[in-house]
Amino acid sequence: MRLPVKDMDIATGSVRVVILNQQDAARMDLHANDRLFLRKGGRKAIAILDVAESEKAVPPGRIGLFEEVLDALNAKHNDIVDFILARKPESIDSIKLKMDGKELTPSQINGIVKDIVHSNLTDVELTSFVTANYIHGMTMNEVVSLTKSMAYSGLHLSLRRRPIMDVHSIGGVPGNRTTPIVVPIVAAAGLTIPKTSSRAITSPAGTADALEVLTNVILPKEKLERLAYQLGGFMVWGGAISLAPADDKIIAVEHPLNIDAEGQMLASIMAKKASVGATHLLLEIPIDRNGKVRDERRALHLKNAFCTLGNKLGIDVHVLVTDGSQPIGNGIGPALEARDVIWVLTDDRRGPQDLREKSLIMAGKLLEMGNCCKRGEGYATAERILDSGEAYAKFIEIIKAQGGPRIVKADAVPLSAHTFIVRAPRNGTITNMDNKALASIAKAAGAPSDHGSGIFLHKHRSENVRRGEPLYTIHAGSRDELRYATSAARAFNGVSIR
Amino acid sequence: MRLPVKDMDIATGSVRVVILNQQDAARMDLHANDRLFLRKGGRKAIAILDVAESEKAVPPGRIGLFEEVLDALNAKHNDIVDFILARKPESIDSIKLKMDGKELTPSQINGIVKDIVHSNLTDVELTSFVTANYIHGMTMNEVVSLTKSMAYSGLHLSLRRRPIMDVHSIGGVPGNRTTPIVVPIVAAAGLTIPKTSSRAITSPAGTADALEVLTNVILPKEKLERLAYQLGGFMVWGGAISLAPADDKIIAVEHPLNIDAEGQMLASIMAKKASVGATHLLLEIPIDRNGKVRDERRALHLKNAFCTLGNKLGIDVHVLVTDGSQPIGNGIGPALEARDVIWVLTDDRRGPQDLREKSLIMAGKLLEMGNCCKRGEGYATAERILDSGEAYAKFIEIIKAQGGPRIVKADAVPLSAHTFIVRAPRNGTITNMDNKALASIAKAAGAPSDHGSGIFLHKHRSENVRRGEPLYTIHAGSRDELRYATSAARAFNGVSIR
Repeated sequence: MRLPVKDMDIATGSVRVVILNQQDAARMDLHANDRLFLRKGGRKAIAILDVAESEKAVPPGRIGLFEEVLDALNAKHNDIVDFILARKPESIDSIKLKMDGKELTPSQINGIVKDIVHSNLTDVELTSFVTANYIHGMTMNEVVSLTKSMAYSGLHLSLRRRPIMDVHSIGGVPGNRTTPIVVPIVAAAGLTIPKTSSRAITSPAGTADALEVLTNVILPKEKLERLAYQLGGFMVWGGAISLAPADDKIIAVEHPLNIDAEGQMLASIMAKKASVGATHLLLEIPIDRNGKVRDERRALHLKNAFCTLGNKLGIDVHVLVTDGSQPIGNGIGPALEARDVIWVLTDDRRGPQDLREKSLIMAGKLLEMGNCCKRGEGYATAERILDSGEAYAKFIEIIKAQGGPRIVKADAVPLSAHTFIVRAPRNGTITNMDNKALASIAKAAGAPSDHGSGIFLHKHRSENVRRGEPLYTIHAGSRDELRYATSAARAFNGVSIR
Repeated sequence: MRLPVKDMDIATGSVRVVILNQQDAARMDLHANDRLFLRKGGRKAIAILDVAESEKAVPPGRIGLFEEVLDALNAKHNDIVDFILARKPESIDSIKLKMDGKELTPSQINGIVKDIVHSNLTDVELTSFVTANYIHGMTMNEVVSLTKSMAYSGLHLSLRRRPIMDVHSIGGVPGNRTTPIVVPIVAAAGLTIPKTSSRAITSPAGTADALEVLTNVILPKEKLERLAYQLGGFMVWGGAISLAPADDKIIAVEHPLNIDAEGQMLASIMAKKASVGATHLLLEIPIDRNGKVRDERRALHLKNAFCTLGNKLGIDVHVLVTDGSQPIGNGIGPALEARDVIWVLTDDRRGPQDLREKSLIMAGKLLEMGNCCKRGEGYATAERILDSGEAYAKFIEIIKAQGGPRIVKADAVPLSAHTFIVRAPRNGTITNMDNKALASIAKAAGAPSDHGSGIFLHKHRSENVRRGEPLYTIHAGSRDELRYATSAARAFNGVSIR
């Protein structure tokens, strides 16, 4: 088949797309999502077919080419291209097998991951894979294969040093910003901890968002390796270095259906640890009956799954199951959380005790795992490093090396200017602070995209309050956002008093 | 959120799409496939978000709007639009339930079908539904709901006449063009048979393709109802009248994975029968060990499923299980099959006996089902109507009313000019004609898009041949296609001689 080109003047940035009018497609017996093999002169390309119903998009007698296809064929408007139906990638047969409930081999899974990374699969094909994994579940062997394939399909650090420590929390607890405290303590103790973090996905702040208030979190691979050798660690946004590129595409498909298939979740987390070369991982699993992990049974199940998977990958996984029912620290939102972190690191009396406590427990555990101290002495060792100012010095070293200032002052962290204080409606004791409600209010105020927005908690669970006393202060980026946040606060009633 | 518009100058013809640059999307915490609620002045619209990685598609600080969205908002380039994340349609919760293995209620299925018809679901969501149906299967109650929802979501004929006959063959047998013979016989007997047919999907010709050689197969609903009343029937392309619009979209998702989930297949066929108001359906299930239905066990299973479903829909289904292992008639390809049909209708000695025989069996069964004759007398009655010329007269009446000529001559049907005769390589008896191979050769020659292309069979199974005797003639639309077809004929060896 031969048709003159219409330059669509669109780029997808990934998948190669061509468009035919539906009349031509019907006549040529071609369907949306078919793969076409295109040729112009000596140039060749494979692209996914989209079918346009309107003549405005592509009229009959023309083939519309997106930017990536024009480039690959070195073609321009009105050039003639040849095309035929192309063979489907083998990974589609593997997806079909998974749909039929068969266990996939490592090489089948590797083929699928490669095709995901190279944008060779359409949304329909990828969705079927993800849906089949969700429905049938994945065996541990499949999860191991998926993890390895994902880890080695992207960038990976090759640090010639052992051990390499890593830490991860299965998110969802507002204000739980332990990483910027744990990493400096562990690095100051002489261990290597190359830490990549995520941005907020559904929460008001991720670790990367909070760190971005203080320094640059997007660095190239070579720089990261240098920092790991020179300083023992770094704290960056994992999304910027393509650590497990297949993962993002899988998550993009899970997102609209709000599914989080266990096998894929395990692989997603562990692939990123494998790609920085971690030998030891401390994993926090917070239990919250409204959160991701709802009870102890589920936490123990996940603990076993992570340990088994770690074992197969050569990563020593230690799991801390924690109470995730209440926010940690006082700030919820990037800048407010960054301020808490600095206060804890500088031993300021405004530093939230619960954040300090939790950070010391985690850092202590990592010190023990890394053989920096005897078992049972981790907490005390971590506390000494924090209180001596070594952790803060290491923190400043890392922040500065990544492009931040030479000192950071909590009081200099800019917060959003529109504020409103939510006060106790009556006397009593706080019986609960609702994670989800507080997160929603902080998001309504503008977090995480407005770094300075969010919530500052004046009170915590079990504290007594008197009518009219401040419960929390909303910081919003604009008058509109303040209005959204205050009406969210009225609607959700984030604080229970009895 | 507010951004100035970039007019993308693209129309999808269905789904409303807007595009943000990935930088903006990340900042706003929005993801591909999210639904956005857009507003400009008093105008509102809901659209699906696509995220562009390249600045060329949509630069940061702009929102790209497709044609359908521009129209809905009455917006143009550089206008400012407001947008927020919209609530997801309820049908997504239903899809999630199906993924979790739950049986869906009629109203849940109806909600999904409505959202499919109105393009409210993304490819990801629709694919998850189709994949979940494939993996979990559908209960008979679900199939009934799906059939009813699909039938009533599109156009349906309301003929005030009973009975209304229909006939369907679960395709795949080359040359099996009984419909244009059966419909005139049944209509000539005084019954009503409003027949919609499909075009070729993967075969060298569908009934609609063959009829298109002789007349117009695209007619508006009002005209169809008039023809049904005045002539007792019509023969048109079902795709032109939106009979079960959800079905096409489901098939578009099944196609790339080459799946054909039973529940969806049952619903797809029966919805179209329900939407023309059929009270009686004769269903042919041809068995071919390389085809859609591979053995008698499968045929009986399908027979039961169709009868049960028909029962719940108030359609009296009668099933004929036939031998589908060999081509029917001599022609394979739209014009070649149309010629066979005319020869049979005009009692020409060149009319293939097997096509005549099968058409009489089917027409006879329909006459019995419609109480036009006693049980056991259907075949003889049909034969009398055919041989008396009444069927041909009715055929001409219908063809003419649809826009065709007053007489049709088999010899006037134009065939493609590039021909090649495939000859027997040795003496012997033909033990098999391979349906799939012959279909591939006919398609390589240009069928169905070149109506005149295909294959004319000189011989059939069980016949003796001498070396050098013609087996079949290839008719191709161009020299290239003739070359493709002859090399396909060499590769596939469509005729076995022993």
